[in-house]
Parts: sequence; C-alpha cells; structure tokens
Amino acid sequence: MRRTLILILLVSGLAGCSAGATRDDDVLYQVSTIAALLEGVYDGEVTVAALRSRGDVGLGTFGALDGEMVVLDGTVYQVTADGRARVAPDDLTTPFAAVTPFESDIAASLDGRIDLRELELALDLSLPSRNLIYAVKVTGEFAYVKVRSVPRQEKPYPKLAEVVKAQPVFEHRDVRGTLVGLRMPAYAKGINVPGYHFHFLTEDRTEGGHVLECILTRGRADIDTTFALEMALPRDKAFAGADLSGDRQGEVHAVEK
Amino acid sequence: MRRTLILILLVSGLAGCSAGATRDDDVLYQVSTIAALLEGVYDGEVTVAALRSRGDVGLGTFGALDGEMVVLDGTVYQVTADGRARVAPDDLTTPFAAVTPFESDIAASLDGRIDLRELELALDLSLPSRNLIYAVKVTGEFAYVKVRSVPRQEKPYPKLAEVVKAQPVFEHRDVRGTLVGLRMPAYAKGINVPGYHFHFLTEDRTEGGHVLECILTRGRADIDTTFALEMALPRDKAFAGADLSGDRQGEVHAVEK
Repeated sequence: MRRTLILILLVSGLAGCSAGATRDDDVLYQVSTIAALLEGVYDGEVTVAALRSRGDVGLGTFGALDGEMVVLDGTVYQVTADGRARVAPDDLTTPFAAVTPFESDIAASLDGRIDLRELELALDLSLPSRNLIYAVKVTGEFAYVKVRSVPRQEKPYPKLAEVVKAQPVFEHRDVRGTLVGLRMPAYAKGINVPGYHFHFLTEDRTEGGHVLECILTRGRADIDTTFALEMALPRDKAFAGADLSGDRQGEVHAVEK
Repeated sequence: MRRTLILILLVSGLAGCSAGATRDDDVLYQVSTIAALLEGVYDGEVTVAALRSRGDVGLGTFGALDGEMVVLDGTVYQVTADGRARVAPDDLTTPFAAVTPFESDIAASLDGRIDLRELELALDLSLPSRNLIYAVKVTGEFAYVKVRSVPRQEKPYPKLAEVVKAQPVFEHRDVRGTLVGLRMPAYAKGINVPGYHFHFLTEDRTEGGHVLECILTRGRADIDTTFALEMALPRDKAFAGADLSGDRQGEVHAVEK
C-alpha cells in the first residue's frame, strides 16, 4: 500500500517533465567494453584529458582499476579505495568509461522516500523508449547511500568478479549529493552494463563511489536522451588477447549490484 | 585429408600478410541495430548519400527491406528481389547498414578450393585479435556462390524471420566477383551479426546478394582492422516502440545463414 502511494506521487512529479530538443551531435563516447573489464583488462590508453574533450557527464574506472570514476559538470573525479573523491589528474588513463556532452532533455522532480529500484522504475516512466541511450543526473537529499570503490590492482590482474569480493563499502546517511548514471538498452549488454548504472558524489565532492543501494528523500532528475554511441576499442595486447566470448550477464550483475 | 591439405595451403598463403598502419579515424559507422531489423523496423532515416559520406565499403539493407546493400569502392549497390544489382539512388534510405573508409591492413592470397566456412577459418588465422572489428573484401574466382535477396515489404512489416522463409535464392557458377563483409566480435552480438557476414557482387556488378554458401577457387583477401564503432540509433516511433529485449542468437543464425 505504501509503495503504491509513492509511485503515484512520482508519476505526478514526472507529469511535469519538460522535453527539450536533442542536438544531432549528442553522442555517448565509450572506452572499451564491459566484457574486457570483467576479464581484467585494466590498463588504460585514453587519458582523462581526452575523455573530458568528449563529454562532461559520465562514469568509469581508472588504469589498474584504481578507483571509481564520476564525471560531473566537466570535472573527472577519482574515488579511491578509501571512498574519498579527488579531481583526477589529466594524465591518468581509463580502461573503461563513458561520457557525453550532457543536456537535460527530460527533467523531473522526485518526492517521497524511494529506494534505488523505485528510483529506476520512476525514471523509466519518463523515458520515450527503452531502446535509446540515456545519461542521468539525480541531485538531491539521500537518507542513505551505500557505495563501494575498488582498490588499485597489480599484474597479473585478477578478473573483476574476484576484485569485488573484497570491495571496500561505505555508507552515507542524510547526505546531499548527485547520482551520475547511464541507462543502456538491453541489446547493448555485451558492450556496457544493461539498465541503470550509477556512481555517487557527495555535494561537497569529497566522497563517493559505485552505488549499491540508496534511499532518496527529495531530488531532481535530469535525463539526456542520446541517439548515438561511439565505442573506442583498446589497441593493447591485453584487450586483443582476452577471451571476450560467452554471455556474462550473471557476472555483470554480480559485480555491479 | 583433403581438408587438412587445403588449410595448410591457406596458412602458407596467409604467411605473406602485410600489416599496414591503421588511421586513427578508422571507424565503422553503423545505422541502427540487428535487434531492430529482426523485429521488423524497416523504415530508413539515413540516406545513401549520408552513408557514402561515412565509408566506401560495407553492407546493409534498404528502407522497407527493399533488397540487400553492397557498398564497394565508394558505390552503394542495391540487389533487389530478382537478384539484380543497380547503383542505389542517393535519396534511398537504410534502416540498417554499416560502412567504413576501407584501407587494407592485412592482405592475403587464397589458393585452393574452399567453402565459406573454410574461408572464414582462413581469414581468422590472419587476424590480430577476435575482439576487434574488421571489414573484409575477398575478390576472386568462385566455382559457386549461393545468394539470397529480400523482397520489399508492406506495412505492417513482418519480422525478418518471417520474410526470409520465402527469400528468393540465386546460384552462380564459375563467376568472378567480390565478397564484401564484416567480422564483428562476439560481445557485439546485440547490435550486429557476430562473426562474419558477407554480401556478394559479381565482377560486372550486375548481380549479387546476401551470401549463403560459396566455393572460392582463387582470390585475394583484404582486411581492414577497425578500432572504433559509431552507432546511430533511429529517431522513429517504430524503433522506440520495438521490443528489443531478449537474446536473439537463434534468430540471427536463422536469418543470416
């Protein structure tokens, strides 16, 4: 009964959506593939400076899997294994990331205490299609945010599923901040995480990580509809030699959720 | 015994490969997704003229599924349901296609009577990795080529698996021509056909189609290694509303092979 009421409030909130024009050059620029990251291809080739030239909102990780990446308002943040965020130096590299020049095509205010799953359902209601690519920013007040980060790895790199077994987890309560995320269509599952994938940054931009759970109490969602994907494949031997065949949906779920 | 001998000859032929430099702007430009084509999203938005501006080699289909597309040396050919090829007018559209500015990074001479599966195995031996994207041209003499085309559809469009049940099939014997194809990595299976996918054009460029079988007797293969994919998603309602969830590998195999 409680859940039903919450969703009605959300739909009401979303009824105030404003749909803007979408630029023709609205591209999600992606480095490598989720399949390669799962296989332990952690050496980066694309620099933070190069990534920033392709977009101002997005997420990813860093060379040697040295933390979670949050790209917000043109700044690339590195959340290291201690859960602390810092501005990433321009010469750091990334083995996996996706950014886009963000513009808000759909805006919605979100009221009511909702968890991550309910937030995703509410956002889905505002989308024109499940077959397009979306970048998402949700800024507001959170009763709870549970995040993880990943520690820098040494070669030979273990697979991502091994790394996250010992992932450091951090809990924030009554915190203001922004969820930065992507929603990828189901057909893109071999190249990125299907569905929603959020990273978090506190309002003061000193802490964050990969979102495992959250409870949003009040906020604003901005969604950028994207009609193009540009994927740059790594030129290194680790990528060339990795076994990227097979279906990894169970593995993706295990490392992301 | 016979097959073993053929493969040895091929490896010997491939030992003469020359690897060229790959340009940084070497991108495979793709319109829509194989998932959408399977679901019957056949209305095109991208024109032949626009497609030619993004590459000179590739393949695809046309609006309303009006034939097979072969792009060779900068010309876009339309193979209609009668198996005849003509130069496609610039204002025709495509609902699914992929092209790249072709340059030969790997060249190999192919001797010995080999079928399509053996050709694919031979090409695989010359690739630096199974995780990259390749455009392929195989020009030579064929003892046999079996192709199909697809007839123009009327709305409401049937799914592709329905259309190909009645596909017109054409057989060529002792013919010179070119196989134009792509090899997509396994992780790209939701967005394009994984593995090899060839269309054929006769040397006089008057006939062709989607390749079902072939026997090559002598030829030359040129392979373009591509490190980037740019995928443009349709803006129309048919794409937005299609159910593109679920795994379609069985369906892809049924319509392509």
